[in-house]
Formats: sequence, C-alpha cells, structure tokens
Amino acid sequence: MSKSVRLALLGCGTVGTEVVRLLHEQATDLTARIGAPLEIVGIAVRRPGRDRGDLPVDPGLFTTDALGLVKREDVDVVVEVVGGIEPARTWLVEALRAGKSVVTANKALLAEDGGTLHDAATEGGADLYYEASVAGAIPLLRPLRESLQGDTINRVTGIVNGTTNFILSAMDATGAGFEEALEEATALGYAEADPTADVEGFDAAAKASILASLAFHTRVGAADVYREGITAVSARDVASAKQMGCTIKLLCIATRSVDSSGQASVAVRVHPAMIPTSHPLASVGDAFNAVFIEAEAAGQLMFYGRGAGGAPTASAVLGDIVAVARNHLAGTRAASESSYADLPIRPMGEAVTRYHVSLDVADRAGVLAAVAGIFAKHDVSIATVRQSGRGDDAVLVIVTHGAPDAALAATVEELRGLEFVRAIASVLRVEGGV
Amino acid sequence: MSKSVRLALLGCGTVGTEVVRLLHEQATDLTARIGAPLEIVGIAVRRPGRDRGDLPVDPGLFTTDALGLVKREDVDVVVEVVGGIEPARTWLVEALRAGKSVVTANKALLAEDGGTLHDAATEGGADLYYEASVAGAIPLLRPLRESLQGDTINRVTGIVNGTTNFILSAMDATGAGFEEALEEATALGYAEADPTADVEGFDAAAKASILASLAFHTRVGAADVYREGITAVSARDVASAKQMGCTIKLLCIATRSVDSSGQASVAVRVHPAMIPTSHPLASVGDAFNAVFIEAEAAGQLMFYGRGAGGAPTASAVLGDIVAVARNHLAGTRAASESSYADLPIRPMGEAVTRYHVSLDVADRAGVLAAVAGIFAKHDVSIATVRQSGRGDDAVLVIVTHGAPDAALAATVEELRGLEFVRAIASVLRVEGGV
Repeated sequence: MSKSVRLALLGCGTVGTEVVRLLHEQATDLTARIGAPLEIVGIAVRRPGRDRGDLPVDPGLFTTDALGLVKREDVDVVVEVVGGIEPARTWLVEALRAGKSVVTANKALLAEDGGTLHDAATEGGADLYYEASVAGAIPLLRPLRESLQGDTINRVTGIVNGTTNFILSAMDATGAGFEEALEEATALGYAEADPTADVEGFDAAAKASILASLAFHTRVGAADVYREGITAVSARDVASAKQMGCTIKLLCIATRSVDSSGQASVAVRVHPAMIPTSHPLASVGDAFNAVFIEAEAAGQLMFYGRGAGGAPTASAVLGDIVAVARNHLAGTRAASESSYADLPIRPMGEAVTRYHVSLDVADRAGVLAAVAGIFAKHDVSIATVRQSGRGDDAVLVIVTHGAPDAALAATVEELRGLEFVRAIASVLRVEGGV
Repeated sequence: MSKSVRLALLGCGTVGTEVVRLLHEQATDLTARIGAPLEIVGIAVRRPGRDRGDLPVDPGLFTTDALGLVKREDVDVVVEVVGGIEPARTWLVEALRAGKSVVTANKALLAEDGGTLHDAATEGGADLYYEASVAGAIPLLRPLRESLQGDTINRVTGIVNGTTNFILSAMDATGAGFEEALEEATALGYAEADPTADVEGFDAAAKASILASLAFHTRVGAADVYREGITAVSARDVASAKQMGCTIKLLCIATRSVDSSGQASVAVRVHPAMIPTSHPLASVGDAFNAVFIEAEAAGQLMFYGRGAGGAPTASAVLGDIVAVARNHLAGTRAASESSYADLPIRPMGEAVTRYHVSLDVADRAGVLAAVAGIFAKHDVSIATVRQSGRGDDAVLVIVTHGAPDAALAATVEELRGLEFVRAIASVLRVEGGV
C-alpha cells in the first residue's frame, strides 16, 4: 500500500461538509479505487471554532490561514469549495505553480480567469479538475474533455441553473408571476437571499463559458457570453408560450458555425427562450439540470441530473479527487487545457435566433400590413401570425424564422415607435423548432 | 511535434470505415488535441481487394494477416472493430501483453472474457478502452470509470439495444405484433438478417455485464446476467400496458443491495418490462439508447444518445484513440480495471421484481378469492386487480407489489394449473413505480 495522498480542503460549507463526510464514509472504497488512502491534512475556514455537529474530522485540522495551508510541503492536492474570484485565485495559482493538483467547484473564477489557472497548472505540471463547477453531479466535463475528443461539437444547449429552472417551472405550473415564484423558491431554499447571480443569468453564463471553452477548444470567458436573466419573464409570457405548445426555460446555447469563407467562429449566449413541450429539455423540471450536445459523428447526446446541492456536488468533487490522486501516484497528469482552435467569438447581433413577439395594436385596416412591412424591411421572415381582437384593440402574435439577432432587435425597436402599436407585451426568443 | 502514434485497425466494416474517414477528416484537429499525428500503419480485413469506394486510405495498408499486424514492432495502438470472441481475443491478448494499448468495440468478448483482456493489459502495462462497446456514442463508461469513482452506485437501468427498442416502439405506435414489427426493422436496416443476438437479449446482456462490472467494481460476466428477450411480447401485452398508462421496454437492470447482515451483492438482468409512460426511459424511442444511474451522493443521472450506427460508434472509438494516444505519448496508462469489491452475484430468483399478470378465467363466484389465495400462499402482495367480464369468461389483470422473482414465478406456475384459469394471457415484469 502506497503512502497516503494528502488533501488540503479550502472551505467547509454545504459542499465541503459533504466532501468530508463522503471521504470518511467511503474511505475503504476510495483507498481500494485509488491504491492509497486519502488524508485530509488541513481545512481552511473563516470560523474554525464554529459548531459543525458530528463532522467526522479532527477539530485540530481547522485553520484560518488558507494560503499557509496551500503552501505546506505535505499537501499533495488542494480542494477548493469556497467560490468567488479572490482570494480563491491567489490560493489556487500558488498551489498549481508549486505542482499541487487542484480540484475546484469555482465556476465564477474559471469563467472570469480560467486562463490564469490553466497556465499555472501547465507551469507547475499539476492537474486542474473542475467537474463540480458545471451541472453538479452530472458527468459532463470529462465527456467533453475526453470522450468527445475525436468528434466535432457544433452545439451545446443546456439548462444549467437550478434556481431559475425551479422558478420557471413554478410559473408554468401555477401561472404565478416572477416575483411570487421567486418568493417560493427562496422559502424552499432553492434561491439565495440575494438571488442576482441566478436570476440575472450570471451563474448560467459562467457555466456556459466553461462548457463552450471545452467544447470548442477555445478560451471563452464570462465577458464573451451574451447574458439575459429571467426577471422580465411575465405570467403573460408563460401563458403565451403555453398557447403555442411551448414552455419557457433559461437556456445556455453555445454554437460553432462556419461562414462561407470557411472561417469557424463561436457564439455563446444565455437567455430565456420558448421551447416546444415535446423538446427533451422542456420536461426537465424543478432544480434539475440537463445538457444537450450535438456533435458531427456522435449525433445528439443528452446528460441529465441534479445540478446543485451538497451531496451531488460533492460526488463530482470526489470523482475529481480520485482522478488527481491516481495521477499523483502514477506521477502523471491529465491532458492540459486544449485551446488550440482559438476561434473568434461572434457577437450576439450576428447570432441567428428566432423571436416570438406579442403586440397590442389598434384593430383597424392596414395594421397587419404595416407590421409585416417592418419585418420585411429588416429582412426578417415571418413564420406564423396569430391575430385576436378585443374591442378596439387586437393582439398580434408573430413568430419569425431565423434571422440575425440584431435585425430582430431592430425590428422590435421600430415596432415600438409606431403610433398604432399600443404596447409590446412580450418579446421572447424561440429555440428548438417551434 | 512528436513522432506519430501508429494505429493498427482490425476490421473495416461499417464502424471501421467511419473510423478511417474521421481520422482523415479530423487529422488536423486530432493532431492538435493529442500533440502528435495519428497514423494508420495497417488494416486487417478478410477481403483486401474489395471495393471500398473513395475510402481515404492507401490500398497497400490492407492485409489479411491480423495477428502479423498486431505483432509488428511499429504498432503502438490496436483498434479492434471486428467483433466476436475468436480470433479477436487472441489478437487483443497478444497486443496487450506486448504493451500495445487496445481500443475495442467488442462487447461480446468483454462480456464473455473481459477478465482475460484486463489481466493482459495489466501484464503488458497497456491501456484497454472500450467506450464504443456499450451505447455507441454515449459517453457512459468514462463517467463510470472516472467521474463516479467517489460515489456508490446502487442501480443502473438502461435501454441499451436499439433494435429491440425500435421494434417495441413500433409495436407501441401501430399495435403490430412482434413478427410484423421485426420485419419492418429488418427492412429498414435496424435488425440484422439473423436478429437472434438482439431480440433474444444477448446483446443487451453483454452490455449489462460491462456496465455492472464498472458500476460495482466486480467482474460480472455474460453468464451472470439473467436474460429474457422480446420474442414473446405480444400485441395484447402492449395493449394491456397501454391500458395501465405504461409502455414496454427491454431493460437492463443492474442493482447492488445490502442484506440484513451487511453483505452487499449484485444482481443483473435483462428482460422486457412495463414502465409508466411518465418515466424518462419511456420516451426513449426508435433506435436511441438511454441509461439511468442512481448513486448515493449524485442521485439520479441519465445519459441519452444514439446507441448504434457507424458514425456514433466511430465517435466513441476515436475518443478512446485520443485518450490512449495521449497516454502513450506521456508514457503512462489509465487506472486499470477495478474489481476489488468482488461482490457475489445474486441469482434471479432472489431479485425483487413486480409482475403484471393477465388471466382469462371462468366468470363465476369464488374465482377471485381462489386466485388471491394463491398469491397470498406465496407471500406475494397484490397491488391492483382489474376484472372485466366477457360472456362466460372474465379477464383478470393483477399487478403485484415487489416480491422475490422466484415467488412470483411459482405463483404464476400454480395459477397455470387451476381448472378455472383458461389461459395466462400475459406475464410481464413491472418497473419504475407503476
């Protein structure tokens, strides 16, 4: 039996506690699977004296000095479950440069400055694993990093934020508005006290950047992702989607496309969209996550599971710990970040999307012709129109064919200025072949 | 740039042709991802002179001497897409013992004698990868081998045979009988001329043994898998399932359970079963595959995609080629087979299942009481009974709660002998909380 692989744990909140518990409960199995025991040699926390119930760990392991812990000679692997950009980045760069492998769940840091971490890992000859950063327990990054390396991925579409999926599912089920559904999510523990990162799409955008980077062998940062949250999604939008046989989901969509000159490029976006209820992602309810991958040879693949929560996230962290521990013992490391393709990022305005536009208009002759003329002027082709009158007003629901997002936005902007358009009740993108 | 990684390809049928095509088309990307070019140095086939259209490969590479090719000094990696036990086993053992890594799609060989291959890989210090052997393009084995290594898997439930899923989907959609649906599958190329391996469940059983071995860290061979095909599934069964809000699928089910003394054991079975239409596996149509995994910390995970076909299978083969090529260049190998748990295999009779039994009985007083008495005698609890009369006869449909399969089988056997039971119209297992 080899000597133990020594872990420094940074953070001991919901996920960290589960990691400690699983390391303890599964110790025998983990030792057999790795070929050596795992040993926690220190846990960095803000409040070492805090009551942690019956956590199966020596209280003497707690420290407030995370950087000191990372630097210790007897640490082989650093496991970070604190989150946030700093000081996590400083700790992890220090570890990686010193040749200590890192397992992290820190999506914000990876999206903001993944390049720095990957460079530090290459410099130190260390492993950098982060399966838990996207879609919790769903094995997603390893398939992208390894299984699909012989294929060309064209599109990744995912529901990667459990909080917003819970809110949208509740709105769909009960007809509630956004605020009411958010209150329910908060009461049930699905939303944090400050829900901004979730409902404004920052969390999903960070995950989209990580997925796109791996799928397209290109560094895609958080700033490269077009982002729109769900705070503007109304009960009327949800009802309108239902009438069309659709449901609304917050999607992350990463696409690779090749223009007429043969130049490939990448576009990554996060926004609410209407998808048909027959689409596999439509039935992903509550706080579940699912990711659809379309690859040239493999065709359509879907991965589904729990995207958050202490135990599912800890499962992903432990899978990574086993991998880096095995590599450590074998004196090797996994293939480093692959960003050789270095594809340009296409701006959102050029992304081809479809719009669903619902207008309150004056009910008189010539209105439909005028509205249709504005779509035509912007070269946007209309797929379906539904008009229903109510007194002096009419409601006009228009779904377009695919067109550059900028053309669609300009069309809506021009409609907004028309005298006979009383209100633009809802504008939503449409995905998945409605 | 490193010198090339040299591949010997054994077999050049549907999958082999796609592998050659992808290696050619993606050469630039593969070189960038691996850090060295891949080079095919020989292709073993039965008929080297056969017309292979515009296959982008030097005709001089073809040979009939597979064993000679495997033994060549200049071969680094052997890719086997021939199938069958022999001579594939001889070739692969030869390669592995000589330290040449193997990528194979050969489920039959892995299920029949995986231990021999794994032992040869350990002996030679070589890699043995076989993602394409189960569920085609779906990245399934790597998540099991790596991502879930920190977790305990309790159950794997899958649709892993596209041919039978196509047939059962057609029966469900059209009301056709098995023979008619099989004819359609054959005409469309979904079933082979001799469909035995698919329709009798041998193919699914081989895949079940591979999944169970990885999930439970225990060598599970083809002979350890209880197997029942779909040839006895009738149009009446399908109609009966529909009445219950169910559909019939050929499932592979691998479970780990712990008895009252704390002893864990494993049971692996393949058989048709009724599942509720609301179950995620129920909507897996046509020739698609999907696998559900239930793990202690991760919870429920599902993987979905194309389970067969040249391009999807080749995608999985290429992913493995990239992995072993990287390992070859790094002078390392992946973690070897993990069978440390070595759990005992529980016989089918002890597996807890649920039955749906449809009986034609004489419509007279006391019949239901007598039938119910026989279930009680075998300690099988009844969940629902539905009786409908037609003239002198009645149809009795009984769904049980979970009970040992042997007790259920004995119950049905005793019912068969009763004077007032005219016929046992259908017996089907039920899964997924009907």
